[in-house]
Amino acid sequence: MRLKLTLAYDGRAYRGWQSQTGGGAVQDVLGAALSRLAGQAVRLHAAGRTDAGVHARGQVAHCDVPDGRLDPADWQKAINAHLPADLRVMRCGKAAADFHARHHARGKHYIYTLWTGPVLPPERVGRAWQVRPSLDRGLLRTAARALEGQHDFTGFSANRGDGSPRSGVRTLFRVRVAERGPEVRLHFTGDGFLYKMVRMLAAWMVRVGQGREPVTACARYFAGARWPHVAPAGGLCLERVFYRRVITD
Amino acid sequence: MRLKLTLAYDGRAYRGWQSQTGGGAVQDVLGAALSRLAGQAVRLHAAGRTDAGVHARGQVAHCDVPDGRLDPADWQKAINAHLPADLRVMRCGKAAADFHARHHARGKHYIYTLWTGPVLPPERVGRAWQVRPSLDRGLLRTAARALEGQHDFTGFSANRGDGSPRSGVRTLFRVRVAERGPEVRLHFTGDGFLYKMVRMLAAWMVRVGQGREPVTACARYFAGARWPHVAPAGGLCLERVFYRRVITD
Repeated sequence: MRLKLTLAYDGRAYRGWQSQTGGGAVQDVLGAALSRLAGQAVRLHAAGRTDAGVHARGQVAHCDVPDGRLDPADWQKAINAHLPADLRVMRCGKAAADFHARHHARGKHYIYTLWTGPVLPPERVGRAWQVRPSLDRGLLRTAARALEGQHDFTGFSANRGDGSPRSGVRTLFRVRVAERGPEVRLHFTGDGFLYKMVRMLAAWMVRVGQGREPVTACARYFAGARWPHVAPAGGLCLERVFYRRVITD
Repeated sequence: MRLKLTLAYDGRAYRGWQSQTGGGAVQDVLGAALSRLAGQAVRLHAAGRTDAGVHARGQVAHCDVPDGRLDPADWQKAINAHLPADLRVMRCGKAAADFHARHHARGKHYIYTLWTGPVLPPERVGRAWQVRPSLDRGLLRTAARALEGQHDFTGFSANRGDGSPRSGVRTLFRVRVAERGPEVRLHFTGDGFLYKMVRMLAAWMVRVGQGREPVTACARYFAGARWPHVAPAGGLCLERVFYRRVITD
Protein backbone atom coordinates (compact mmCIF):
# COMPACT_ATOMS: atom_id res chain seq x y z
CA MET A 1 0.00 0.00 0.00
CA ARG A 2 1.31 3.42 -0.92
CA LEU A 3 0.84 6.08 1.75
CA LYS A 4 0.69 9.84 1.28
CA LEU A 5 1.98 11.47 4.46
CA THR A 6 1.49 15.14 5.29
CA LEU A 7 4.26 16.13 7.68
CA ALA A 8 4.97 18.95 10.10
CA TYR A 9 8.28 19.46 11.83
CA ASP A 10 10.29 21.93 13.80
CA GLY A 11 13.38 22.39 11.67
CA ARG A 12 15.60 23.33 14.61
CA ALA A 13 15.85 19.73 15.71
CA TYR A 14 16.76 18.24 12.32
CA ARG A 15 19.57 18.26 9.80
CA GLY A 16 17.13 19.05 7.01
CA TRP A 17 14.90 16.61 5.14
CA GLN A 18 17.48 14.57 3.30
CA SER A 19 19.15 11.57 4.91
CA GLN A 20 22.57 12.37 6.34
CA THR A 21 25.57 10.26 7.25
CA GLY A 22 25.18 9.80 10.98
CA GLY A 23 21.43 10.42 10.81
CA GLY A 24 19.52 13.33 12.29
CA ALA A 25 17.60 14.27 9.15
CA VAL A 26 13.80 14.09 9.04
CA GLN A 27 14.08 11.34 6.43
CA ASP A 28 16.31 9.34 8.79
CA VAL A 29 14.07 9.66 11.82
CA LEU A 30 10.80 9.08 9.99
CA GLY A 31 12.31 6.30 7.88
CA ALA A 32 13.56 4.50 10.99
CA ALA A 33 10.11 4.68 12.62
CA LEU A 34 8.41 3.41 9.46
CA SER A 35 10.91 0.62 8.91
CA ARG A 36 10.53 -0.55 12.50
CA LEU A 37 6.74 -0.63 12.16
CA ALA A 38 6.81 -2.25 8.72
CA GLY A 39 9.40 -4.85 9.67
CA GLN A 40 11.33 -4.00 6.51
CA ALA A 41 13.26 -1.06 5.05
CA VAL A 42 10.85 1.69 4.00
CA ARG A 43 12.05 4.29 1.53
CA LEU A 44 10.62 7.81 1.73
CA HIS A 45 10.26 10.39 -1.03
CA ALA A 46 9.37 13.98 -0.14
CA ALA A 47 8.04 16.81 -2.26
CA GLY A 48 10.70 19.25 -1.06
CA ARG A 49 14.17 18.76 0.37
CA THR A 50 14.04 21.33 3.13
CA ASP A 51 17.38 22.49 4.56
CA ALA A 52 18.54 22.20 8.15
CA GLY A 53 16.56 24.63 10.32
CA VAL A 54 13.71 25.03 7.80
CA HIS A 55 10.29 24.15 9.18
CA ALA A 56 7.32 22.40 7.62
CA ARG A 57 3.62 22.52 8.29
CA GLY A 58 2.64 20.70 5.09
CA GLN A 59 5.56 18.72 3.68
CA VAL A 60 4.29 15.72 1.69
CA ALA A 61 6.04 12.37 1.37
CA HIS A 62 5.10 8.98 0.06
CA CYS A 63 6.24 5.47 0.91
CA ASP A 64 5.18 1.87 0.45
CA VAL A 65 4.17 -0.20 3.45
CA PRO A 66 3.09 -3.85 3.63
CA ASP A 67 -0.62 -4.47 3.13
CA GLY A 68 -2.11 -5.92 6.25
CA ARG A 69 -4.18 -5.17 9.25
CA LEU A 70 -3.37 -1.48 9.43
CA ASP A 71 -5.36 1.15 7.56
CA PRO A 72 -3.89 4.63 6.95
CA ALA A 73 -5.39 6.03 10.17
CA ASP A 74 -3.74 3.21 12.14
CA TRP A 75 -0.44 3.88 10.40
CA GLN A 76 -0.66 7.55 11.30
CA LYS A 77 -1.21 6.76 14.99
CA ALA A 78 1.51 4.11 15.05
CA ILE A 79 4.07 6.32 13.30
CA ASN A 80 3.35 9.30 15.54
CA ALA A 81 3.74 7.08 18.59
CA HIS A 82 7.29 6.31 17.37
CA LEU A 83 8.30 9.89 16.61
CA PRO A 84 9.50 12.78 18.78
CA ALA A 85 6.86 15.49 19.37
CA ASP A 86 8.63 17.93 17.04
CA LEU A 87 7.94 15.68 14.03
CA ARG A 88 4.34 14.71 13.29
CA VAL A 89 2.31 12.99 10.61
CA MET A 90 -0.56 15.47 10.40
CA ARG A 91 -2.52 13.46 7.82
CA CYS A 92 -2.09 10.02 6.28
CA GLY A 93 -4.00 8.60 3.33
CA LYS A 94 -3.86 5.74 0.85
CA ALA A 95 -2.38 7.01 -2.41
CA ALA A 96 -2.62 5.64 -5.93
CA ALA A 97 0.06 3.00 -6.56
CA ASP A 98 1.94 5.36 -8.90
CA PHE A 99 1.61 8.53 -6.80
CA HIS A 100 4.94 10.31 -6.39
CA ALA A 101 5.23 13.11 -3.81
CA ARG A 102 7.92 15.01 -5.74
CA HIS A 103 7.19 14.22 -9.41
CA HIS A 104 3.48 14.88 -9.12
CA ALA A 105 3.75 18.10 -7.11
CA ARG A 106 2.29 20.93 -9.15
CA GLY A 107 3.12 23.70 -6.79
CA LYS A 108 4.27 24.66 -3.32
CA HIS A 109 3.44 27.34 -0.83
CA TYR A 110 6.26 28.63 1.37
CA ILE A 111 6.04 31.29 4.09
CA TYR A 112 9.01 33.35 5.15
CA THR A 113 8.47 35.14 8.49
CA LEU A 114 10.11 38.46 9.33
CA TRP A 115 10.08 40.29 12.64
CA THR A 116 10.43 44.06 12.39
CA GLY A 117 10.15 44.96 16.08
CA PRO A 118 13.13 46.09 18.17
CA VAL A 119 13.28 42.88 20.25
CA LEU A 120 12.68 39.36 18.95
CA PRO A 121 10.15 37.66 21.28
CA PRO A 122 11.33 34.30 22.72
CA GLU A 123 8.54 32.40 20.98
CA ARG A 124 9.92 33.55 17.61
CA VAL A 125 13.49 32.45 18.17
CA GLY A 126 14.46 30.11 15.34
CA ARG A 127 11.14 30.79 13.60
CA ALA A 128 11.53 34.35 12.30
CA TRP A 129 14.23 36.60 10.92
CA GLN A 130 14.54 39.88 12.81
CA VAL A 131 15.25 42.67 10.34
CA ARG A 132 16.43 46.15 11.29
CA PRO A 133 15.97 48.85 10.17
CA SER A 134 12.32 48.21 9.53
CA LEU A 135 10.71 47.79 6.13
CA ASP A 136 8.80 50.16 3.89
CA ARG A 137 5.62 48.20 3.28
CA GLY A 138 5.00 49.88 -0.10
CA LEU A 139 8.45 48.94 -1.37
CA LEU A 140 7.95 45.41 -0.07
CA ARG A 141 4.73 45.05 -2.05
CA THR A 142 6.39 46.44 -5.17
CA ALA A 143 9.15 43.85 -4.74
CA ALA A 144 6.55 41.10 -4.40
CA ARG A 145 4.87 42.11 -7.66
CA ALA A 146 8.22 42.26 -9.47
CA LEU A 147 8.88 38.61 -8.63
CA GLU A 148 5.52 37.25 -9.71
CA GLY A 149 5.32 35.46 -13.05
CA GLN A 150 7.60 33.23 -15.07
CA HIS A 151 11.30 34.03 -14.76
CA ASP A 152 14.66 32.36 -14.78
CA PHE A 153 15.46 32.28 -11.07
CA THR A 154 18.97 30.82 -11.45
CA GLY A 155 20.44 34.08 -10.11
CA PHE A 156 18.32 33.62 -6.97
CA SER A 157 19.53 30.09 -6.32
CA ALA A 158 22.52 28.28 -4.91
CA ASN A 159 24.24 25.31 -6.45
CA ARG A 160 23.23 22.15 -4.63
CA GLY A 161 26.35 20.47 -5.97
CA ASP A 162 24.55 17.53 -7.53
CA GLY A 163 24.34 18.83 -11.10
CA SER A 164 20.64 19.75 -10.81
CA PRO A 165 18.73 21.66 -12.04
CA ARG A 166 19.00 22.14 -15.76
CA SER A 167 16.58 24.99 -16.23
CA GLY A 168 16.02 27.73 -13.70
CA VAL A 169 12.73 28.87 -15.20
CA ARG A 170 9.95 28.77 -12.65
CA THR A 171 6.62 30.49 -12.21
CA LEU A 172 5.68 32.33 -9.05
CA PHE A 173 1.89 32.37 -9.12
CA ARG A 174 1.71 34.74 -6.22
CA VAL A 175 3.95 36.59 -3.79
CA ARG A 176 1.97 38.09 -0.96
CA VAL A 177 2.98 40.34 1.95
CA ALA A 178 0.88 39.82 5.09
CA GLU A 179 1.38 41.96 8.18
CA ARG A 180 0.28 41.52 11.75
CA GLY A 181 1.89 44.12 13.98
CA PRO A 182 5.68 43.80 13.80
CA GLU A 183 5.37 40.42 12.05
CA VAL A 184 5.58 40.38 8.26
CA ARG A 185 4.96 37.12 6.44
CA LEU A 186 6.09 36.69 2.85
CA HIS A 187 4.00 34.08 1.03
CA PHE A 188 5.49 32.43 -2.05
CA THR A 189 3.31 30.19 -4.17
CA GLY A 190 4.89 28.73 -7.28
CA ASP A 191 5.17 25.70 -9.54
CA GLY A 192 8.65 24.88 -8.28
CA PHE A 193 11.54 26.30 -6.33
CA LEU A 194 15.30 26.11 -6.90
CA TYR A 195 17.78 25.37 -4.13
CA LYS A 196 17.67 28.18 -1.50
CA MET A 197 15.48 30.24 -3.84
CA VAL A 198 12.87 31.31 -1.27
CA ARG A 199 15.52 32.36 1.24
CA MET A 200 17.35 34.36 -1.43
CA LEU A 201 14.13 36.01 -2.61
CA ALA A 202 13.25 36.86 1.01
CA ALA A 203 16.69 38.43 1.51
CA TRP A 204 16.22 40.42 -1.71
CA MET A 205 12.76 41.64 -0.71
CA VAL A 206 14.09 42.75 2.67
CA ARG A 207 16.89 44.77 1.05
CA VAL A 208 14.38 46.37 -1.32
CA GLY A 209 12.02 47.08 1.59
CA GLN A 210 14.87 48.75 3.46
CA GLY A 211 15.67 50.92 0.45
CA ARG A 212 19.10 49.34 0.08
CA GLU A 213 18.39 47.77 -3.31
CA PRO A 214 16.38 49.13 -6.26
CA VAL A 215 13.41 46.96 -7.16
CA THR A 216 14.19 47.29 -10.87
CA ALA A 217 17.50 45.50 -10.38
CA CYS A 218 15.70 42.16 -10.24
CA ALA A 219 15.95 42.18 -14.05
CA ARG A 220 19.72 41.72 -13.69
CA TYR A 221 19.22 38.66 -11.52
CA PHE A 222 16.62 37.21 -13.89
CA ALA A 223 19.28 37.72 -16.61
CA GLY A 224 21.75 35.56 -14.72
CA ALA A 225 23.58 37.81 -12.22
CA ARG A 226 23.99 36.09 -8.87
CA TRP A 227 22.16 37.52 -5.90
CA PRO A 228 24.59 37.08 -2.99
CA HIS A 229 22.37 37.08 0.13
CA VAL A 230 20.48 34.21 1.77
CA ALA A 231 17.96 34.76 4.57
CA PRO A 232 18.33 32.53 7.66
CA ALA A 233 16.79 29.05 7.51
CA GLY A 234 14.66 29.51 10.64
CA GLY A 235 12.31 32.02 9.01
CA LEU A 236 11.23 29.56 6.34
CA CYS A 237 8.34 27.11 6.47
CA LEU A 238 7.03 24.76 3.80
CA GLU A 239 3.34 25.39 4.22
CA ARG A 240 1.68 23.23 1.58
CA VAL A 241 2.27 21.13 -1.52
CA PHE A 242 -0.27 21.13 -4.33
CA TYR A 243 -1.17 18.16 -6.54
CA ARG A 244 -3.20 18.15 -9.68
CA ARG A 245 -4.60 14.70 -9.21
CA VAL A 246 -7.02 13.85 -6.50
CA ILE A 247 -5.37 11.26 -4.31
CA THR A 248 -7.32 8.21 -3.20
CA ASP A 249 -7.78 8.61 0.48
CA MET B 1 17.11 54.54 39.38
CA ARG B 2 14.13 52.21 39.50
CA LEU B 3 13.47 50.31 36.29
CA LYS B 4 10.20 48.81 35.11
CA LEU B 5 11.00 45.79 32.94
CA THR B 6 8.46 44.12 30.66
CA LEU B 7 9.62 40.54 30.15
CA ALA B 8 8.91 37.73 27.73
CA TYR B 9 10.17 34.19 28.20
CA ASP B 10 9.75 30.67 26.98
CA GLY B 11 8.79 28.81 30.14
CA ARG B 12 10.18 25.49 28.93
CA ALA B 13 13.72 26.59 29.65
CA TYR B 14 13.13 27.87 33.20
CA ARG B 15 12.22 26.61 36.63
CA GLY B 16 9.50 29.21 36.95
CA TRP B 17 9.91 32.85 37.94
CA GLN B 18 10.99 32.49 41.52
CA SER B 19 14.62 31.99 42.47
CA GLN B 20 15.50 28.33 43.10
CA THR B 21 18.28 26.61 44.97
CA GLY B 22 20.72 25.73 42.23
CA GLY B 23 19.41 28.45 39.94
CA GLY B 24 17.57 28.03 36.65
CA ALA B 25 14.63 30.29 37.47
CA VAL B 26 13.95 33.44 35.43
CA GLN B 27 14.67 35.52 38.54
CA ASP B 28 18.07 33.82 38.87
CA VAL B 29 19.12 34.28 35.25
CA LEU B 30 17.86 37.85 34.92
CA GLY B 31 19.15 38.79 38.37
CA ALA B 32 22.62 37.48 37.52
CA ALA B 33 22.73 39.50 34.29
CA LEU B 34 21.55 42.66 36.08
CA SER B 35 23.96 42.23 38.98
CA ARG B 36 26.88 41.73 36.61
CA LEU B 37 25.98 44.89 34.70
CA ALA B 38 25.32 46.93 37.83
CA GLY B 39 28.44 45.73 39.62
CA GLN B 40 26.34 45.01 42.70
CA ALA B 41 23.56 42.63 43.76
CA VAL B 42 20.27 43.63 42.11
CA ARG B 43 17.03 42.37 43.59
CA LEU B 44 14.09 41.75 41.28
CA HIS B 45 10.37 41.84 42.08
CA ALA B 46 7.85 40.48 39.56
CA ALA B 47 4.12 41.00 39.26
CA GLY B 48 3.40 37.28 39.01
CA ARG B 49 5.31 34.22 40.17
CA THR B 50 4.85 32.04 37.10
CA ASP B 51 5.42 28.29 37.56
CA ALA B 52 7.96 26.15 35.72
CA GLY B 53 6.89 25.75 32.10
CA VAL B 54 4.54 28.76 32.14
CA HIS B 55 5.33 31.38 29.49
CA ALA B 56 5.22 35.14 29.59
CA ARG B 57 4.76 37.77 26.94
CA GLY B 58 4.16 40.62 29.35
CA GLN B 59 5.52 39.80 32.81
CA VAL B 60 6.49 42.98 34.66
CA ALA B 61 9.32 43.32 37.17
CA HIS B 62 11.07 46.19 38.87
CA CYS B 63 14.56 46.65 40.24
CA ASP B 64 16.93 49.38 41.32
CA VAL B 65 20.10 50.03 39.37
CA PRO B 66 22.87 52.56 40.00
CA ASP B 67 22.33 55.99 38.50
CA GLY B 68 24.96 56.65 35.91
CA ARG B 69 25.72 56.80 32.25
CA LEU B 70 23.03 54.33 31.18
CA ASP B 71 19.48 55.38 30.38
CA PRO B 72 16.65 52.78 30.36
CA ALA B 73 17.09 52.08 26.61
CA ASP B 74 20.80 51.36 27.21
CA TRP B 75 19.94 49.09 30.12
CA GLN B 76 17.51 47.16 27.94
CA LYS B 77 20.13 46.57 25.25
CA ALA B 78 22.82 45.67 27.77
CA ILE B 79 20.59 43.25 29.69
CA ASN B 80 19.37 41.53 26.52
CA ALA B 81 22.97 41.13 25.37
CA HIS B 82 23.60 39.16 28.58
CA LEU B 83 20.51 36.93 28.37
CA PRO B 84 19.71 33.78 26.38
CA ALA B 85 17.38 34.35 23.41
CA ASP B 86 14.46 32.67 25.19
CA LEU B 87 14.37 35.42 27.83
CA ARG B 88 13.99 39.03 26.68
CA VAL B 89 13.40 42.48 28.10
CA MET B 90 10.72 43.65 25.67
CA ARG B 91 10.44 47.13 27.19
CA CYS B 92 12.36 49.03 29.83
CA GLY B 93 11.42 52.34 31.39
CA LYS B 94 12.27 54.52 34.36
CA ALA B 95 9.70 53.97 37.10
CA ALA B 96 8.72 56.17 40.02
CA ALA B 97 10.99 55.54 43.03
CA ASP B 98 8.14 53.82 44.90
CA PHE B 99 6.77 51.77 42.00
CA HIS B 100 6.27 48.13 42.93
CA ALA B 101 5.59 45.58 40.18
CA ARG B 102 3.53 43.29 42.41
CA HIS B 103 1.91 45.62 44.94
CA HIS B 104 0.80 48.14 42.33
CA ALA B 105 -0.56 45.63 39.83
CA ARG B 106 -4.29 46.22 39.39
CA GLY B 107 -4.93 43.29 37.12
CA LYS B 108 -3.48 40.63 34.91
CA HIS B 109 -4.33 39.06 31.60
CA TYR B 110 -3.53 35.37 31.13
CA ILE B 111 -4.11 33.26 28.03
CA TYR B 112 -4.55 29.50 28.21
CA THR B 113 -4.15 27.83 24.80
CA LEU B 114 -5.97 24.62 23.88
CA TRP B 115 -5.52 22.51 20.76
CA THR B 116 -8.59 20.53 19.72
CA GLY B 117 -7.25 18.90 16.52
CA PRO B 118 -6.32 15.22 16.30
CA VAL B 119 -2.55 15.85 16.09
CA LEU B 120 -0.62 18.51 18.02
CA PRO B 121 1.56 20.45 15.52
CA PRO B 122 5.28 20.56 16.43
CA GLU B 123 5.23 24.35 16.80
CA ARG B 124 2.65 23.97 19.61
CA VAL B 125 4.57 21.46 21.67
CA GLY B 126 4.99 22.89 25.16
CA ARG B 127 2.77 25.85 24.25
CA ALA B 128 -0.72 24.33 24.09
CA TRP B 129 -2.75 21.62 25.78
CA GLN B 130 -4.19 19.12 23.36
CA VAL B 131 -7.68 18.15 24.50
CA ARG B 132 -9.64 15.20 23.16
CA PRO B 133 -12.53 14.69 22.69
CA SER B 134 -13.14 18.13 21.31
CA LEU B 135 -15.10 20.88 23.01
CA ASP B 136 -18.64 22.13 22.64
CA ARG B 137 -18.08 25.81 21.98
CA GLY B 138 -21.47 26.78 23.43
CA LEU B 139 -20.76 24.98 26.70
CA LEU B 140 -17.32 26.56 26.81
CA ARG B 141 -18.82 30.05 26.54
CA THR B 142 -21.37 29.26 29.21
CA ALA B 143 -18.53 28.12 31.47
CA ALA B 144 -16.66 31.37 30.76
CA ARG B 145 -19.68 33.47 31.78
CA ALA B 146 -20.16 31.42 34.96
CA LEU B 147 -16.65 32.33 36.12
CA GLU B 148 -16.88 36.05 35.49
CA GLY B 149 -17.43 38.34 38.45
CA GLN B 150 -16.38 38.37 42.10
CA HIS B 151 -16.09 34.94 43.69
CA ASP B 152 -14.10 33.07 46.28
CA PHE B 153 -11.74 31.07 44.08
CA THR B 154 -10.09 29.13 46.91
CA GLY B 155 -11.61 25.90 45.55
CA PHE B 156 -9.87 26.60 42.26
CA SER B 157 -6.44 27.07 43.82
CA ALA B 158 -3.58 25.03 45.21
CA ASN B 159 -1.78 25.70 48.43
CA ARG B 160 1.56 27.32 47.76
CA GLY B 161 2.71 26.18 51.18
CA ASP B 162 3.79 29.61 52.36
CA GLY B 163 0.67 30.52 54.30
CA SER B 164 -0.62 32.93 51.65
CA PRO B 165 -3.23 33.97 50.70
CA ARG B 166 -5.67 34.95 53.40
CA SER B 167 -8.69 35.63 51.23
CA GLY B 168 -9.52 33.79 48.03
CA VAL B 169 -11.96 36.42 46.80
CA ARG B 170 -10.96 37.69 43.38
CA THR B 171 -12.75 39.37 40.48
CA LEU B 172 -12.57 38.03 36.96
CA PHE B 173 -13.40 41.05 34.83
CA ARG B 174 -13.65 38.96 31.72
CA VAL B 175 -13.27 35.36 30.55
CA ARG B 176 -13.24 35.14 26.78
CA VAL B 177 -13.14 32.16 24.40
CA ALA B 178 -11.35 32.88 21.11
CA GLU B 179 -11.17 30.30 18.35
CA ARG B 180 -8.99 30.01 15.29
CA GLY B 181 -9.46 26.67 13.62
CA PRO B 182 -8.52 23.89 16.05
CA GLU B 183 -6.92 26.40 18.43
CA VAL B 184 -9.02 27.69 21.31
CA ARG B 185 -7.60 30.43 23.51
CA LEU B 186 -9.09 31.11 26.92
CA HIS B 187 -8.49 34.70 28.02
CA PHE B 188 -8.66 35.46 31.73
CA THR B 189 -8.55 39.07 32.88
CA GLY B 190 -8.86 39.70 36.59
CA ASP B 191 -7.70 41.77 39.53
CA GLY B 192 -5.64 38.93 40.94
CA PHE B 193 -5.06 35.22 40.67
CA LEU B 194 -4.47 32.55 43.30
CA TYR B 195 -1.80 29.89 43.01
CA LYS B 196 -2.53 27.63 39.96
CA MET B 197 -5.94 29.29 39.62
CA VAL B 198 -5.83 29.86 35.84
CA ARG B 199 -4.70 26.32 35.16
CA MET B 200 -7.44 24.92 37.39
CA LEU B 201 -10.08 27.12 35.77
CA ALA B 202 -8.85 26.05 32.31
CA ALA B 203 -9.13 22.38 33.33
CA TRP B 204 -12.63 23.03 34.65
CA MET B 205 -13.73 24.80 31.46
CA VAL B 206 -12.39 21.94 29.35
CA ARG B 207 -14.37 19.38 31.37
CA VAL B 208 -17.49 21.50 31.05
CA GLY B 209 -16.86 21.91 27.32
CA GLN B 210 -16.54 18.15 26.96
CA GLY B 211 -19.84 17.61 28.76
CA ARG B 212 -18.12 15.80 31.64
CA GLU B 213 -18.95 18.41 34.27
CA PRO B 214 -22.13 20.46 34.75
CA VAL B 215 -21.52 24.19 34.51
CA THR B 216 -23.77 24.84 37.52
CA ALA B 217 -21.38 22.87 39.75
CA CYS B 218 -19.04 25.85 39.86
CA ALA B 219 -21.21 27.11 42.74
CA ARG B 220 -19.87 24.20 44.82
CA TYR B 221 -16.29 25.23 44.15
CA PHE B 222 -17.03 28.86 44.91
CA ALA B 223 -18.45 27.58 48.22
CA GLY B 224 -15.16 25.92 49.08
CA ALA B 225 -15.16 22.44 47.48
CA ARG B 226 -11.77 21.64 45.95
CA TRP B 227 -11.56 21.29 42.18
CA PRO B 228 -9.05 18.46 41.65
CA HIS B 229 -7.69 19.05 38.11
CA VAL B 230 -4.86 21.28 36.92
CA ALA B 231 -4.19 21.95 33.24
CA PRO B 232 -0.56 21.55 32.06
CA ALA B 233 1.79 24.49 32.59
CA GLY B 234 2.81 24.78 28.91
CA GLY B 235 -0.59 26.06 27.80
CA LEU B 236 -0.40 29.11 30.05
CA CYS B 237 1.03 32.52 29.22
CA LEU B 238 1.10 35.70 31.29
CA GLU B 239 0.09 38.16 28.63
CA ARG B 240 -0.06 41.50 30.40
CA VAL B 241 -0.04 43.22 33.77
CA PHE B 242 -2.17 46.30 34.35
CA TYR B 243 -1.28 49.27 36.54
CA ARG B 244 -3.50 52.10 37.63
CA ARG B 245 -0.79 54.67 37.79
CA VAL B 246 0.99 55.95 34.76
CA ILE B 247 4.63 55.03 35.15
CA THR B 248 7.29 57.59 34.38
CA ASP B 249 8.94 56.27 31.25
